Amino acid sequence: MSMNTYSAQVRVTLKRGVLDPQGKAIEGALDSLGFEGVNQVRQGKTFDIKLDANSKKEAEVSLTAMCEKLLANTVIEDYAVFVE
Amino acid sequence: MSMNTYSAQVRVTLKRGVLDPQGKAIEGALDSLGFEGVNQVRQGKTFDIKLDANSKKEAEVSLTAMCEKLLANTVIEDYAVFVE
Repeated sequence: MSMNTYSAQVRVTLKRGVLDPQGKAIEGALDSLGFEGVNQVRQGKTFDIKLDANSKKEAEVSLTAMCEKLLANTVIEDYAVFVE
Repeated sequence: MSMNTYSAQVRVTLKRGVLDPQGKAIEGALDSLGFEGVNQVRQGKTFDIKLDANSKKEAEVSLTAMCEKLLANTVIEDYAVFVE
């Protein structure tokens, strides 16, 4: 079975209801710079990952395991996996 | 003219060629955890922003200005703006 290399993106964001002081600070800074109409800013992380797998499905399963074990703190964060 | 509220996502990533020690550390950690086939990890940031604007185009223009002025360090980072 031949391996393919997949490009994936993992997005990790704070769960709704979890305080995001960094996002609040950015909101304040944007206001200070004169940007009007900004109601909310929430900061998150992305991971662009290149990995070898036998199929797209296998890549997705592997990336989900990476999120559960390392990339996300599932107590306070949600994650989403996108494989090209 | 009535204002609409738009949900936008801004993604900020390191330019190609800029060293990403945090990404390298994650690569090493994934390897230690037994994940095979990971060739590259690059970490970036996302900003989920809710803002009022007269049109989607106006929202995009405003978000691009926010990237240039605050959200991204354009010397070493690229950014992409997505408005829903």
